[in-house]
Amino acid sequence: MNANTEVLNSLREPAYSPEVTPAPPAPPIPLEELTPLAMQWFDETRALSFDGVGITRESYGESESAAARLLTQYAEQEGLHVTADHAANLIFSLPDSDDRTPAIWVGSHLDSVPHGGNYDGLAGIVAGLLCLVDQRRNGRPSRHQLKVIALRGEESAWFGKAYIGSSALFGKLQPDDLLMKHRSTGRTLAECMASAGVDVDAVRARKPCFDLRGAHAYLELHIEQGPVMVARDLPVAVVSGIRGNIRHNSISCIGEAGHSGAVPRGLRHDAIFAVAELITRLDDHWRSLLERDIDLVVTTGMVSTDQEEHSISRIPGQVHFSFEARSESTDTLNVFHELLMAECNSIARERGVRFEFDRRLTSAPARMDPRLREALTQACNRLAIPVATLASGAGHDAALFANAGVPSGMLFVRNAHGSHNPHEAMDIADFMKGVGVLAETIRCL
Amino acid sequence: MNANTEVLNSLREPAYSPEVTPAPPAPPIPLEELTPLAMQWFDETRALSFDGVGITRESYGESESAAARLLTQYAEQEGLHVTADHAANLIFSLPDSDDRTPAIWVGSHLDSVPHGGNYDGLAGIVAGLLCLVDQRRNGRPSRHQLKVIALRGEESAWFGKAYIGSSALFGKLQPDDLLMKHRSTGRTLAECMASAGVDVDAVRARKPCFDLRGAHAYLELHIEQGPVMVARDLPVAVVSGIRGNIRHNSISCIGEAGHSGAVPRGLRHDAIFAVAELITRLDDHWRSLLERDIDLVVTTGMVSTDQEEHSISRIPGQVHFSFEARSESTDTLNVFHELLMAECNSIARERGVRFEFDRRLTSAPARMDPRLREALTQACNRLAIPVATLASGAGHDAALFANAGVPSGMLFVRNAHGSHNPHEAMDIADFMKGVGVLAETIRCL
Repeated sequence: MNANTEVLNSLREPAYSPEVTPAPPAPPIPLEELTPLAMQWFDETRALSFDGVGITRESYGESESAAARLLTQYAEQEGLHVTADHAANLIFSLPDSDDRTPAIWVGSHLDSVPHGGNYDGLAGIVAGLLCLVDQRRNGRPSRHQLKVIALRGEESAWFGKAYIGSSALFGKLQPDDLLMKHRSTGRTLAECMASAGVDVDAVRARKPCFDLRGAHAYLELHIEQGPVMVARDLPVAVVSGIRGNIRHNSISCIGEAGHSGAVPRGLRHDAIFAVAELITRLDDHWRSLLERDIDLVVTTGMVSTDQEEHSISRIPGQVHFSFEARSESTDTLNVFHELLMAECNSIARERGVRFEFDRRLTSAPARMDPRLREALTQACNRLAIPVATLASGAGHDAALFANAGVPSGMLFVRNAHGSHNPHEAMDIADFMKGVGVLAETIRCL
Repeated sequence: MNANTEVLNSLREPAYSPEVTPAPPAPPIPLEELTPLAMQWFDETRALSFDGVGITRESYGESESAAARLLTQYAEQEGLHVTADHAANLIFSLPDSDDRTPAIWVGSHLDSVPHGGNYDGLAGIVAGLLCLVDQRRNGRPSRHQLKVIALRGEESAWFGKAYIGSSALFGKLQPDDLLMKHRSTGRTLAECMASAGVDVDAVRARKPCFDLRGAHAYLELHIEQGPVMVARDLPVAVVSGIRGNIRHNSISCIGEAGHSGAVPRGLRHDAIFAVAELITRLDDHWRSLLERDIDLVVTTGMVSTDQEEHSISRIPGQVHFSFEARSESTDTLNVFHELLMAECNSIARERGVRFEFDRRLTSAPARMDPRLREALTQACNRLAIPVATLASGAGHDAALFANAGVPSGMLFVRNAHGSHNPHEAMDIADFMKGVGVLAETIRCL
């Protein structure tokens, strides 16, 4: 080092050296010691349900029943009590539970979509069971007794209807629903239910098998089915509500077909230019509403020029498309549907096309209980687990409990690659954080 | 009438009463007396070609040959001379024509699409024949002798290739083209040509059967295949040129599929929102270019979310679409293709999607001869027939003549409901105006 260097060094700012306050040690996550048990249960159930591509547990089918038997075996090994209701949903509890006092229910669904993933549904049941195992092993029951429910037939993939097990629970399955046919075997839901041990007559008579007065709360842990938590680096999230939706399965835009070279712009009634402009306008509205912090997702999942008559050199005379808006707010859904109608009218006028709508289908949003949302958030805070609040875009059994009047709460666990495919990827450490939050919440309710 | 009314009336402006100058009587349309003959020929050919739904005259098929025989019979009844070249195109002339002097050629095609209309092609042949009939009946040949050519196989519907007869005429049919298969029978073009009397060896050897030095001009009358002339109330129009095109049969937009409810706007890679925005931007560019009087039509005839995996509640991960731009100017086509690429790049960046392009296909524009355009326009003016100039968006045999170096001109006749369908509707009075313009043009060339 020569003199010049020394001078230069003396002119430099002193290095920044903040006073380091060590972060307080994170509190231990409750039930973390049950991680190996959780992994074993997940792995064995996965092996049982593997179809060569992904996981298949058919609603009210043999593969769903096989998983039910396996979970029953696990629970009994741990000294838990297992029963089934008349819709073949399984109910797990401590052996000495008293049905006359209100319970905290924890549940989720047993079934999967075809070639799905292992955690969508199963994670919530295993989470509940682990809480029961902890209470049983440590002789530490919660103030309100804990019951875990493994619901059947949540996925609409098999019979075209979702929430079959939880609908039956509340006596809400319609007699017509029992005639719905299995997507591949063609057997009716009634036949499949009977094979799975359901009392079909009781279901048909719409006899409930859930005592609303006996329910202090319903909690459901579920993997996130979107990419938000990975993007925001959140292991768990508290669900604010389950979005409802407004749908049209098929809207048609009718213009006028013609030779692509021979009809100038001013004389065109081009159905695809009209639909493209409509989608672009809806996207603009969507962006504007998000800027005002309004909860909304908008999807046109199916768009197609008429497959019978389209060709590269023919102006499309017809385009068919689907429409879906989802929001936690019924008002938002109605307003967005009005925007759809207004834009269709405006484009129809400007472009000389017309829009034909099929029946508008709606599904009401479900609000998660504010007290339970707060309890879940506080549990995260006490365990020093970062948390945020998220709307659920997908539907869940919790919506049926909430809409039946049971105070309900949901906790999401981070999951990559979405759900309903074999690539869903939940980290077991994230799952055990979720289980810890669940146990801590149950302890304090 | 009371006083007030009288006062009011006196305040009114006198009624407007222009001096009426009666319009000079319109000059008679030449050849108008041949209207009954034209109607008879059209009607009988229609009856011969009716398929139960529309008109079917298969390229190099029996129904096209039957029409050829009927026209031959008509021509011979009128004392005209009929021959066929080695590609089975028919050539009609006055009996005393001298092959050593340059001729004005008038032609169009014999064939139709399946379930097509009667006038697309046939009108141009009948127009030429009526001019010959007039010359023969009245002993008034034109300065340059008139030859009429009935071309075979113009429609691409049968073998997937257009202009078969006129390509063979100029020795431009490729040996590979002869192996193309008929859309329904699967027979090769070579087999079908042989059945129709073609010298297939000569065609395969790419031997031309048209003497370019012997061609003073080529003229083609054709129904308009778009709605412009109906909209602008024009019985006839002079064609400025035949649009070329740039096409992609299939461009794919690849985004990321996902649960419609669970992926917020900021994390979406929605392929249909991307393609809708692309089409909307292209439409904006198109409108801007038209405002600068640039000749252009733009079409995305086929657009579809992936049929295998799309559903109402799934964000589309893939959209496939076709692209076509047509213009009389190759520069415009190239510029618009660059715009397509630039907008795809911009949208790909903004929305996190990518675009995959198949091979770019091009077809060169054909320019109609300015002297012939002027001659056709002057003929209209002399006959007091309102006329305008129009680009042809559809391709025509005239493009092959023009690009082979024969000065070519085209005249459109008004036609409702487009072409390539049984509903095309040309008024016989409009047609006879077109025939008159053609005869007047031929007389003066």
